[in-house]
Amino acid sequence: MIVGIIGGTGGIGKGMALRLSQNHEVIIGSRKEEKACASCETCKELLLELGLPFNLTPTTNQGVVDLSDIVVFSIPAETLNSTINSLKNLEGKIIISLMNPMERDTYFRYTPPEEGSAAQQLQKLLPDSKVIAAFNNIPAKKWSQLSEPLDYSVCVCGDDDKSKKLVMELVNSISKLEALDAGPLAISATIEAITPLVINIARLNRMHDVGVYFR
Amino acid sequence: MIVGIIGGTGGIGKGMALRLSQNHEVIIGSRKEEKACASCETCKELLLELGLPFNLTPTTNQGVVDLSDIVVFSIPAETLNSTINSLKNLEGKIIISLMNPMERDTYFRYTPPEEGSAAQQLQKLLPDSKVIAAFNNIPAKKWSQLSEPLDYSVCVCGDDDKSKKLVMELVNSISKLEALDAGPLAISATIEAITPLVINIARLNRMHDVGVYFR
Repeated sequence: MIVGIIGGTGGIGKGMALRLSQNHEVIIGSRKEEKACASCETCKELLLELGLPFNLTPTTNQGVVDLSDIVVFSIPAETLNSTINSLKNLEGKIIISLMNPMERDTYFRYTPPEEGSAAQQLQKLLPDSKVIAAFNNIPAKKWSQLSEPLDYSVCVCGDDDKSKKLVMELVNSISKLEALDAGPLAISATIEAITPLVINIARLNRMHDVGVYFR
Repeated sequence: MIVGIIGGTGGIGKGMALRLSQNHEVIIGSRKEEKACASCETCKELLLELGLPFNLTPTTNQGVVDLSDIVVFSIPAETLNSTINSLKNLEGKIIISLMNPMERDTYFRYTPPEEGSAAQQLQKLLPDSKVIAAFNNIPAKKWSQLSEPLDYSVCVCGDDDKSKKLVMELVNSISKLEALDAGPLAISATIEAITPLVINIARLNRMHDVGVYFR
């Protein structure tokens, strides 16, 4: 199973690449291939240094689409439309949305698009793809802290059951993450909204990198 | 600090009375005082049997309002309007909302009122009261299982800081619950929506009484 990360040079994208490439074939994409190459080199150096295995290839965002079975959209929600417009051949792909649209005034507020959630917006833009929301609530910094396990609960939701199961397997293959079937894509707004909630909780209660456990 | 529970004879209300009355003065209210008396007797017998202390008094819902410093609304969201209309003198009171409006079709969906959340609706109905959302995501059955500690994270939000702090102290005084300041009342929709989410998670993943931990 080849997993490609669109926006793979950003903080979360890079952290995901570090975690996923240890036991999956991972393709890092960026608008500019040079940027993907540089990010890939940094990841490889770090993984080599730690004596960890990896399978990591840089390419463009379109290269990610063309080569991957699962495409992760690790981009800011506000760049979704322009990113989609720049890509083709997304039909039939499993697409993971981990976008959490939010704004900050005195605190962080969830600001979903009119479709209900970023994942639902993505599904509407790509009606022939299988959009699955996952990884939404993992604290960004934790992805890259390879010395620490990731042991959070990960809500996974979507309307295509087979794709949802595959993504749940992917989740469960990473560190100690625990995938939880959260139902249809219509539930994704609640999952996305948890991210501004935990950021507020971290700030108001002097905590850091707050994650979620459902038990 | 006297804590009164409106709807104190329901499953959650009774469970809260069992937990809270061990170290607070608790008043159980019901539309009919006889019902509150019966519920109170059952609670007392159980607590006596377990050798636990208690301070528990039955009364009407109006009695709860008149005697309590903190009034807990432990009622189904759909009975909110009729309950409010049957009560007076709620001005100035600290009111805890633990309502989570939801509907079920193939899965549970959060169905907030037009005010945004049940807590915000309550605040609009009672502009001179201090509404705080708390205890929303504790699995109902766990309240009554006194042999087990309650160790969940409890999001507390509201617009009156002093009242929010008092409610957080109340939360922290119960078993091993951990109060977390989640911000203003405007964030309550996200907190309420977590309850249908965890119910769906429990059903879809063969789990029971799923609660939430933010760490």
